[in-house]
Amino acid sequence: MTQANPLRTTPLRTGADLLCETLLANGVDHCFANPGTSEMHFVAALDRQPAMKCVLGLFEGVVTGAADGYARMADRPACTLLHTGPGLANGLANLHNAKRAGTPMVNVVGDHATQHLAFDAPLTSDIEGLARPMSHWIGRSSSADALGTLAQQAVREAGTAPGRIATLILAADHAWGSTSAPPSAPLPAVALKAPSPEAIAQAARALKQHATDASNTMILVGGRALRDEGLALASQIAATTGARLLAPQANARVQRGLGRVMIDRVPYVVDAALQKLGTVKRLILIGSKAPVGFFGYPGKPSSMLPPDCEVICAARPDEDLIAALRQLADAVGVPAELQHGTAHAPLLAQTRELPLPSGVLSASTVAQSVVAQMPAQSIIVDESVSSGRDFFPLSYQAAPHDYLQITGGAIGIGLPLAAGAALAAPQRQVITLQADGSAMYTVQALWTQARERLNVLTIIYANRRYAILRGELQQVGAGEPGVNARRMLDLDDPVIDWVSLAKGMGVEAARADTAEAFNDLLAAALGRAGPFLIEAVI
Amino acid sequence: MTQANPLRTTPLRTGADLLCETLLANGVDHCFANPGTSEMHFVAALDRQPAMKCVLGLFEGVVTGAADGYARMADRPACTLLHTGPGLANGLANLHNAKRAGTPMVNVVGDHATQHLAFDAPLTSDIEGLARPMSHWIGRSSSADALGTLAQQAVREAGTAPGRIATLILAADHAWGSTSAPPSAPLPAVALKAPSPEAIAQAARALKQHATDASNTMILVGGRALRDEGLALASQIAATTGARLLAPQANARVQRGLGRVMIDRVPYVVDAALQKLGTVKRLILIGSKAPVGFFGYPGKPSSMLPPDCEVICAARPDEDLIAALRQLADAVGVPAELQHGTAHAPLLAQTRELPLPSGVLSASTVAQSVVAQMPAQSIIVDESVSSGRDFFPLSYQAAPHDYLQITGGAIGIGLPLAAGAALAAPQRQVITLQADGSAMYTVQALWTQARERLNVLTIIYANRRYAILRGELQQVGAGEPGVNARRMLDLDDPVIDWVSLAKGMGVEAARADTAEAFNDLLAAALGRAGPFLIEAVI
Repeated sequence: MTQANPLRTTPLRTGADLLCETLLANGVDHCFANPGTSEMHFVAALDRQPAMKCVLGLFEGVVTGAADGYARMADRPACTLLHTGPGLANGLANLHNAKRAGTPMVNVVGDHATQHLAFDAPLTSDIEGLARPMSHWIGRSSSADALGTLAQQAVREAGTAPGRIATLILAADHAWGSTSAPPSAPLPAVALKAPSPEAIAQAARALKQHATDASNTMILVGGRALRDEGLALASQIAATTGARLLAPQANARVQRGLGRVMIDRVPYVVDAALQKLGTVKRLILIGSKAPVGFFGYPGKPSSMLPPDCEVICAARPDEDLIAALRQLADAVGVPAELQHGTAHAPLLAQTRELPLPSGVLSASTVAQSVVAQMPAQSIIVDESVSSGRDFFPLSYQAAPHDYLQITGGAIGIGLPLAAGAALAAPQRQVITLQADGSAMYTVQALWTQARERLNVLTIIYANRRYAILRGELQQVGAGEPGVNARRMLDLDDPVIDWVSLAKGMGVEAARADTAEAFNDLLAAALGRAGPFLIEAVI
Repeated sequence: MTQANPLRTTPLRTGADLLCETLLANGVDHCFANPGTSEMHFVAALDRQPAMKCVLGLFEGVVTGAADGYARMADRPACTLLHTGPGLANGLANLHNAKRAGTPMVNVVGDHATQHLAFDAPLTSDIEGLARPMSHWIGRSSSADALGTLAQQAVREAGTAPGRIATLILAADHAWGSTSAPPSAPLPAVALKAPSPEAIAQAARALKQHATDASNTMILVGGRALRDEGLALASQIAATTGARLLAPQANARVQRGLGRVMIDRVPYVVDAALQKLGTVKRLILIGSKAPVGFFGYPGKPSSMLPPDCEVICAARPDEDLIAALRQLADAVGVPAELQHGTAHAPLLAQTRELPLPSGVLSASTVAQSVVAQMPAQSIIVDESVSSGRDFFPLSYQAAPHDYLQITGGAIGIGLPLAAGAALAAPQRQVITLQADGSAMYTVQALWTQARERLNVLTIIYANRRYAILRGELQQVGAGEPGVNARRMLDLDDPVIDWVSLAKGMGVEAARADTAEAFNDLLAAALGRAGPFLIEAVI
């Protein structure tokens, strides 16, 4: 490593080395990467740091999606390594999802050497411009020596609640420049913001004032409050006051299953959301935003709340949600001894019989089979789009699990998210509920699953169409789809052969077209190590 | 079509209809699409226009890359249909390539309904911000009525020389709004800029003054001048003055092969480029830029020209290059009768024997076999990266063909570009020379090739690594790659099984690992209709 190499044109310790050392010193030890020539000195530096786990994605959407999945499960950022503007661009859709999820992430984006930029070489582009819409923080290297403090800053930004996207642009000449600067130690973390006593008091007043009308009060719990501790506290508040609990439509991570608090979500479909929230007179937000339609539609409202609904923000997403829930629990009179641990939480899911389905394979029977068979501590990754709506209500009774889902509506997150989650929690079973159209977006993630021998079971809902869009087209009132609409919404010509596709990337796979076959495949697949894919023909 | 539909919530003629009608009236009749809910009214409108050919890509990088390939062969823009910011983001890398190629393109990017934007629904993002780095022109809809004039403007912008990226952001409420505005007829095209007489005179003076030293004068010909007519004129100028001809490293489209002007390119590798241009004292630019290194390297220059080289810009890329060449030919004394037609062009490639290769399959023997067997009027799509460098010099002797290549260094263009080119020229054979690592970026394009039954033969150079980066790592002087470097640069664990991958998307495929097997497969594949893929294990 310190031996002289006759080919070596760069100093023995480079800015890239300083960057790597600082990332490691700041607790970032996973690098999801797809490098190019301008990052080659960073690759060389990573190669000198065996403590950094480098994971290759064969497309940058895999890289950023996997970094998101890793951070959701590890509760600390990974870094990504992306090649100039186009490499970043390819990763933006999943950065959008990560940003919406409140995921911490540090992106290292290589750029040309500073002196080379003026020459407008073919790969030159406005990297800051590309990064801005999907980043909370952007930094550009100014020298090799300064890469330690820049990386330190990036990690702190990423870790700022609820989790931010920090993008560090690394000029090639700073990566290859010489430096003797020591790695920068972590900066003090930005403290979680304390909840506002006035906001908590206002929420408590609303909960107590309307005790006779409590079922018309909804507590919308989001972000970190959707883990065990937060949900237990929220359920005590609901039980004490009579208010109802609900989670937002899309969430980074929810802890669910037997023995855990039952909480439903705002429905995706506008009419269903309006109906569910139709009687709500007061909405109390804990780390969440007032629910809005995923899309706007002619003649339908954008807000999912009744026009006269009062909205009280008890705690914003960047505040300490557990403290907020504890203060609110105190204020509404939940006894202190009930506020600790989850054993006393009300609204817990109870065991009920979960028979295996039989007969026709459908989105619903797939959900039944998974709920019945999934092992405890599974990680469910849900990008099932139209096919997965049966899973959430059924899975209250599943074994305890973590539930991760697409958060920003940018499809193509499921397979990469699963890879990242599996790397963060290698002892747990990851099960991906995956729509076929969305899976194609970042299908390259299957290769990463095979390369890393990840315990990911992918279930493809093979309905062979953009089913959600077929439904939307009907809503538009265009009548039966004609030639052009079918050409844009149907995936059945040719049929995608998922077993071959998976095999092509080193993932074993099989097809099921009855519930019985699916049950058997699932049982067998859950018992093995490494990735597997089931094409569920529904 | 005009029948009342009880579900229909929108007027019978929408802004989306006006947009479609105007696109068609302006000569845009191919729509490469991956729609979402916010574009559903545009989908419904496209469905009412059978004259619009809608082509689905299962990922937006396929969509934009195919629109690029279509326009390079059709010499007119296609439109794309992209779903909000993330859909656009997924297409940006190939928009970067298209922008560098001077390709005309109209992107229609759907956005939320105007009134919905303030609610910050999950898919909301800064679409203008994302579009700006890769667009020459951005327009946002202001009403249903104004969509005709906006589309008209977008098409004119796209068609402005040498070809521009026009991005039209379509708010859902303007797409669904009622309008009776007639479609807008094409605006007068922006005229090609006339070459500057002074610039031509200066170039002519340099060519004549240095007649005794003419081999140290290089004419660098780019853009539209790389078609038959421009090359014939350039070759007359070179023959008359003794100057040499050269093309830029990356070009949108070059007409090459037997009976056509032989012109080499600036080499990709910096040392080779410096050597090739080392004796050049005067560089005359015709629709090209002074050559620069693809990347900057420690201790190497960014300009590929000797420091004392004089650079004369005879014609800029947005000028009428054929007129410029004609004026320059006049000024240096090329007789008028030699300036018309290509029959009299000097420097033409002559027939020579092209034996089929035998023995070990390598990048070089693949090139030999393709050059020997490709039919006349083939379209070669080259994203071979490190493996294809043997093809260009060999293929002077190939049958006449069009040669399209990656222009902006954003890998993942080959398979989509081939699909678009095949749609523009359905009677011609498309042959894609494709690096394996780059192919994975937009592998979904194989499905579009199958769906559209395109005559595309894909040759995968399966070297199972990012070979170009292995070379760059060595240049960095990092010595033998260690664990992390191999984890980021090698694709051999697992090996990608291209035959299964292609089959998974409905494309027939076979593997060759000797030159003889490759020769036979190629001969058989060229004789059939529809797509085929050969995995060339090299």
